[in-house]
This record gives sequence, structure tokens and C-alpha cells, in this order.
Amino acid sequence: MGSLQTDALDFVNADGFQVNPLDPEEFRRQGHMVIDYLADYYRDIHKYPVRSQVNPGYLRKRLPSAAPNDPEPIEAILGDITHDILPGITHWMSPNYFAYFPASGSTAGFLGEMLSTGFNVVGFNWMSSPAATELESIVMDWLANMLKLPECFLFSGGGGGVLQGTTCEAILCTLTAARDRVLNRIGREQIGKLVVYGSDQTHCALQKAAQIAGIFPVNFRAVATTREDAFALNPAALRDVVAADVARGLVPFFVCPTIGTTSSTAVDPVKGICAVAKEYNMWVHIDAAYAGSACICPEFRHVIDGVEMADSFSFNAHKWFFNNLDCCCLWVKEPSALVKALSTSPEYLRNKATESKQVVDYKDWQIALSRRFRSLKLWLVLRSYGVANLRNFLRGHVKMAKHFEGLVAADGRFEVVVPRTFAMVCFRLLPPKPEESGKANELNQRLMEAVNASGQAYMTHAVVGGVYMIRFAVGATLTEERHVTKTWHLVQKQAGEVLASRT
Amino acid sequence: MGSLQTDALDFVNADGFQVNPLDPEEFRRQGHMVIDYLADYYRDIHKYPVRSQVNPGYLRKRLPSAAPNDPEPIEAILGDITHDILPGITHWMSPNYFAYFPASGSTAGFLGEMLSTGFNVVGFNWMSSPAATELESIVMDWLANMLKLPECFLFSGGGGGVLQGTTCEAILCTLTAARDRVLNRIGREQIGKLVVYGSDQTHCALQKAAQIAGIFPVNFRAVATTREDAFALNPAALRDVVAADVARGLVPFFVCPTIGTTSSTAVDPVKGICAVAKEYNMWVHIDAAYAGSACICPEFRHVIDGVEMADSFSFNAHKWFFNNLDCCCLWVKEPSALVKALSTSPEYLRNKATESKQVVDYKDWQIALSRRFRSLKLWLVLRSYGVANLRNFLRGHVKMAKHFEGLVAADGRFEVVVPRTFAMVCFRLLPPKPEESGKANELNQRLMEAVNASGQAYMTHAVVGGVYMIRFAVGATLTEERHVTKTWHLVQKQAGEVLASRT
Repeated sequence: MGSLQTDALDFVNADGFQVNPLDPEEFRRQGHMVIDYLADYYRDIHKYPVRSQVNPGYLRKRLPSAAPNDPEPIEAILGDITHDILPGITHWMSPNYFAYFPASGSTAGFLGEMLSTGFNVVGFNWMSSPAATELESIVMDWLANMLKLPECFLFSGGGGGVLQGTTCEAILCTLTAARDRVLNRIGREQIGKLVVYGSDQTHCALQKAAQIAGIFPVNFRAVATTREDAFALNPAALRDVVAADVARGLVPFFVCPTIGTTSSTAVDPVKGICAVAKEYNMWVHIDAAYAGSACICPEFRHVIDGVEMADSFSFNAHKWFFNNLDCCCLWVKEPSALVKALSTSPEYLRNKATESKQVVDYKDWQIALSRRFRSLKLWLVLRSYGVANLRNFLRGHVKMAKHFEGLVAADGRFEVVVPRTFAMVCFRLLPPKPEESGKANELNQRLMEAVNASGQAYMTHAVVGGVYMIRFAVGATLTEERHVTKTWHLVQKQAGEVLASRT
Repeated sequence: MGSLQTDALDFVNADGFQVNPLDPEEFRRQGHMVIDYLADYYRDIHKYPVRSQVNPGYLRKRLPSAAPNDPEPIEAILGDITHDILPGITHWMSPNYFAYFPASGSTAGFLGEMLSTGFNVVGFNWMSSPAATELESIVMDWLANMLKLPECFLFSGGGGGVLQGTTCEAILCTLTAARDRVLNRIGREQIGKLVVYGSDQTHCALQKAAQIAGIFPVNFRAVATTREDAFALNPAALRDVVAADVARGLVPFFVCPTIGTTSSTAVDPVKGICAVAKEYNMWVHIDAAYAGSACICPEFRHVIDGVEMADSFSFNAHKWFFNNLDCCCLWVKEPSALVKALSTSPEYLRNKATESKQVVDYKDWQIALSRRFRSLKLWLVLRSYGVANLRNFLRGHVKMAKHFEGLVAADGRFEVVVPRTFAMVCFRLLPPKPEESGKANELNQRLMEAVNASGQAYMTHAVVGGVYMIRFAVGATLTEERHVTKTWHLVQKQAGEVLASRT
């Protein structure tokens, strides 16, 4: 980032004026450079340590303390990305990335985002760019059909789909709609009586949404799960907690079953939970953030049986559906509940289309006013790969996880902690001697850190039922079976060292 | 979108297996195609009608009713974008776009988003990709210095900046933090007493945030503004409303002055409002969504004088700062207030860096858990153009608006309705005869619709003090003075026709 006086001249035309920052030919030139930069990045990505190895504060030491006064050329910026940014990136796109839930970006997802960014429309209502709204509605119907969602979630059935950024937003919107639906009935001043339900395995998104929406923190219930139920929310246990709350004069209003919990991909029983919800008139939001996409495969669709009894359903297309971040698909049965809770109608947005009531104005289905043209990437993913291949991609990930599960099971030093359901294996190293059982968690902590510190693979952990386990989540787009096998050998090698060095 | 059996073979390798959807060479090939597509789009953009001319439901008639089972080539998809999507797009990037507040995308903003989408990291905490967090903190400090924000908003001064998607999110986060700060003191059950203040010109984002955060709808105050105050929030009027609420036992807790209101770019007086807020211990959030960026120019910085007394400040870099959607810059004085209201700490996200307390985990500064690497685009914009040029770009827009204002003033048939402050002119056609004054609004509605229907320019309206006015907002990146002049001639021509045809 030295002096760039000479290069800076590139940015100034013959009259000494700055070239327009959206000059088409300059856009073309620089755009091609960045495409090549990223294509090379994907080609060479296996060479980088998967988990970044930097220490806190590394970047401030490398960058100047103020923005430059004069322009700097793209060549210099890309050089700095290589030297200063890449070392600080944890490579979510790496084939050796098995942490959290992987982010399954793809070429089509990327191109869709490029087109959206390039058109740069702000699609708050139909009028502001009709194609942005209409394509979203169409693609959400396509996807609903792929998932075999009941007609009541489609526009033709009086429901509808909308793209949110994340599950957190989807839950906040539906929870707010549910809150207002009940408060409009029983009175705003009853807000302190409203109770929200999940399990102790439910994603923190639910708690956060409840906090933001003003639900009293004491009225958030994380129903305890057990190993016997494979850490799924037990409807009978839910009913007990709900009944106790009702007996105390509280008002249950929202329950959030999960399809594929973050810790162990547990599947909460939708039918049983919906039955309890029906008794108590609660809104059911199904959070299928991770595993919802698997429902396009007939062999997995049963995990959401009963969805017709729910009020809303969401999954993250940026998680296991080849869309780049961010893209959360939300369907609701009763869009008017969202609109009542989230709409505002200032004069400066008034227009004939809205007044005709023939159009959807998605601003009233979400938190923000402005919104990106996210459906383009979903459309490109669906079309570029096709339904048959998308199923095969997902099955490929499941097959690789199964392969890893087999490798774990074949090595007596390890155990698979909870049954594998989708493309994640939860395993741990067993303490060699019975008297070491108290040190099992520490042992696995050390094993995981050793694997991650090697830079050759990255995985993260969870604790369920007091057991620390390593989560091996297949889903990064570039992962092939050879990466899985090689990573297993790495785990075995590190386990040998950890076992040898224990005291 | 016919049969693509032959082309589909491109996607399948010799063994009959699907090529990896992130194959680097296929990514390169398709990426270059889309760059060329977008470069051509910008080159030819003036040929499209600015405001889409389609009718509701146009797209469902053109697209198939289900996702394809087999892959379709990018060539076919781009063809469909041209034929089916472009007609439904309102061209926000057009040089003849003067509606709402324009979206000022740029090459650097686009490339930054590409890199972010390409790396596809999910930067919820420091650990998940250190560069994403650190670059954001650094760039927000750079930008704070450019805006001459006081040290208390910088990380070095105990505050800090964060990138949100939109102002709606920024307001919801700060309002939630402010809500919990007061409720933690007076008790959660007092939520029904909390009151939020804006003016009748404040953006609907404030009302929406208050609704979502559970503030009682009856406790939302839109203080009336007057023409004498140029539709700015009068501190004395605010004090009266606040004092009356306190007298009734209510608890004022949040006030949101605007720098550049949506209807007329009015500037609420920060110092006076902060003084009232201080008396009543309210959180002040400054919404400078539109005009905040202008504060990098010394001649505009005075509009936020007094910002050191506020609690938080935000502006949209995607609005008038050459970043593609979405990118809202938020600074807070007391990050711990955000963290207390928005944090959750599940086991599966536990990590050493967080526990060391040496890092920022931005998930606790926003609504969602997942977050994109948005700082890359801001960094690219700052470096690619440099501070001096960014100032000049903004001044260029102001100059063009001034030019338009002069043209309006020189034609006796029109008036400039409110004084121009930044790059937007609010004007209207005057009814030729005094007895027609009751029809002024209708006349201007017809004029604007005629201009927009021509496809040659796009503007939108607002009503302030009962007066319907046309908003002419300069800010689209490709706009040059010739587009402004030409659009004025279009307005004059349409005005002539509207005047001639009036009954």
C-alpha cells in the first residue's frame, strides 16, 4: 500500500476529471480480474490452513490508520487481500471445512448474487421493481412444491413465501406476528404473560428473537431433552411445561420445533408438537434451517410430516442448498398476520399498484424496508443444477457422512455419540481406561484443537447431555470423499498423539 | 426455456457424474460471462424505460410453474433475464433515475460484494473468520474519522462501529438496547410506559422498530413539524410532548432525529434535541441514512454538530456513498448496551478468542447471528476512489441538483417547495389560475405520472404540510449534468401537455 501516484492516473481522464465510478468498460476490466482472482482462490483453496491462524488484532498492525486520500488501483487492493486478508479468513469454502454447519456456496449462487448486486434494485414494494417481487413469489412456490409443502403455504393456497436474510430474522418476524395476533385479542398490557417454547437444543435465534420482541426473559422456556429421545423435544414434556404455565395464569403463544438441531441434528416431532400447540392455540414455527433442504429428497421428507399443522416454516438456502450467504426461505400460512405486525404505509411509498391490492409488498413481510433481489440466486441455483442434481448433491453429502461414520465405528478407540440423521457425524474419542472417564471431555477438546491447529481440517464441538463431542459436518461444496478419508486419517493420527501424551 | 438435453451434457463429466457446482474453471467461464452481461447492461442502460412498465402478474405468465428437473445452461438463463426479468426491473442504476433516494452502486462496491460472496464466510464471531470482524472495525474507524465523529464513537474511545443491512435494523438494535437499559432499571413490567419520539417526517423505520420491540403503539409520538421550521423537529415542541408524557406517568426513552428526511431532506437540530433528551435521560439515535455521507465534506459537517451528545449514529453507505445494497453504518457510544440486549452464548459457539475478551463478536451487535463480510465493499470503495474523490462525487451530485433547482426557479410556472439542502429538489407545478389552487396536488400527480410513464425518467413524490411535491433526487452513479438538463426539458414538455389538457 505504498505510493500509488502513477497508477492513480488510470482513474483520471484526459481532462483531469475522475472517471465515473460505474464506467462500463472499467467495470468490465476490473470485474474480469476479480473473477479470475476468485477462480484461482477456489482452485488453490486446499493450500490454505482451513481455520485462520491469526491472533486478535493482527490486521490493525498491517493496515494504515486512515482511508487513503487518493485512489488506489484494483491491482494493489487485490494484492493486499492476498497478503493481509486471506491469512485472517477461515476458509468456509475449503473442501476440508467440516465446522458449524458448512456454507454451501456455488457458481450459480455466486452469479445470482452478482446479478442482484449489479442490478442493485431496492425491492421494498412491488412498484420499486416488479420483477424482484414476482420472481421471489414464483421461486418460493417452486421450492414449496419441491419440499411438498401443503398448498396452504403457497400463494395459490392463501399463504406465501418470502426470502429473509437469516433464520433469526424469520423467527423474529413470525414471533412478532404471533405476539400481535394474541395481544390484539387479549390486550397489549398482557405482554408480560406471553410465553415462548423451545427445547434446550433449540438454536439461540429463538431466545434472541423473544428478547428483541419484548417477551419477558422469565417467560422463555427451554424444555429439557434427553438421550432417550435423541435430544428431540418430547411433546409430552412440552405439554407438562405449557400446562403448568397456563395454571399460573400465563399465556403460551409460540413454539419452535427444530428439524436438525445445531448440536446434533436432532429432529423434533412436528406432529406431536403441533398437537400440543393446537390445544393451547400457539403459533408453531418450524425451524428447519439446516435440514429443511433435505426434504426435497423423498427419503427425508418424513422429517417434516405434520407441517400442514404449523403456521410457518423456514430453512436456510445458504446453509445446505448451494446459495451463497444470505438466503433464508420462509413460508407462512397467514401472510396477513405478518403484514399486520410489520407494515407501515408512509405517503412517500404510496402507489397505484399497492392500492390495487393485486400485488405483494414484501417490505411488510420482514424487518427492514429495503431488500435485495435475493430470488435471483435461488432461481439460478434451481435452474443451473436442476432438481435431480440438487437431490444428488445432498445425497452425496449424506453418503460422505455415512462413510465417515463407518470409519469412526471401525476404530474401537472412538464412538459415534448420537445416531447420524443427515450429513453430520457426532463422535468422540473414548478414554482408554474406565478410571479416565471424567477426563473424556478434556481429551476430546484437546483432540479437536490439535486437528484444527494443524490447518488441515476444521471442525467444531457441541455438548449434549454433558458429553463433549466433535461435530463432523459435511456440506462444503468442494468436499469429495477423498477429503473425508484424509481428514479421518488426520483425526486418527492426532488421537494417537493426544492419547500418548495424556497424563 | 425449451429442452436443454444437449446443453445439459456440459454439466456432466465423462463418468456421468455431475461436475462439482463450484468447479473453479466452470466458475471462471460463467463468471466472465456475467461480468460482460452486466458491463453491457450499464453501457446500454439508458435505453431501458427507467420505471418498469409491466402489469402485476406479468412474470407468472412467462415462467414455467415448476423448477426444472435437469440443468439449464447459463446462456439460456441469461437470455431469460434479458427477455423476462429486465422488463420487470425498475432501473435504479439508470442515469435518469431520480426517485426515492437513488442507490449509488459503483464498480468498487460491486467488486467488494463479489469478494464477500466468493469467500462466503459467515462472520458471526471473531473466531469464525477474524478478518471479517477486524476489517469491519478498522474501516468503521476510518469512516468515523472521515465524518469527524467524536472519539467516543471509535473503538479507541470505548465506542465502536458495526455494519448492519439497513437503517431499520440499526434503529431496531439501538432501540432494543435503549429499552433494556431503562427496563433493567425500572422493571420489565413497566414496558407499557415507554415512549418513543420522532417527528411526523421521521422515516417509518422508527415506527416499525418500536412495533417489533414491543413498545405499545399508543406510545409512539410523531411530533408535528411546520413549514416555518422547514419541517424539522422543533426541540421546544419535542419538550412539550415529552413533558406532557412524563406528567402522565409515562417514561420517555428514545428519540430519533433525522439528518435529511425522506420527504424533503429536512435536518433535525441535533443539539437542541440532545439537550431535551439529556433532561429526560433518553437515548438519542441520529438517523442520517441519506445525508450522513455528506458530512465527509467540511461544508456539510455542521448538520451533525452536537453528535457527541447522541448515543448512536447511522447512515446508509448503500444510499449516497457508492456501496451496493446493503450496507448501513452504525456507531454506538456504549457497545455493552447492544451486547446486553442482543447477546446469546450457546455452547456450540464457545471459543478461546471470545473467552479472552480481546475480540469483538459482532453477532451481539445485531439482530441476526449470521453475517456477510460487508466491510470488504466499504474498504474497496474507500480505497478505489479515495477520500478526495468521494467528496467530489457528492459535490457533483449537489451541483447537479443546484443546476436543476435553477432551471425550476427560472420557469415561472413552477416553484421550489422547500429549500434544497443536499442533492434533492422538491418542486411543483403551480396552478395557473388562483381559483385552481385546490387542484394543485392533482395537477402535480398527473405531471409526475406523465413523466414516469414516458420511461425517460423516474421520480417520486411526497406530501409535506398538505402540499404534494415532486422529489427530484440526484444520486444515481451514472447521472451527468446532461441527464439532468434533458429531464428538466421532459418535465417542461409534460407540464405543457398537462396544463393544456386540464379541465
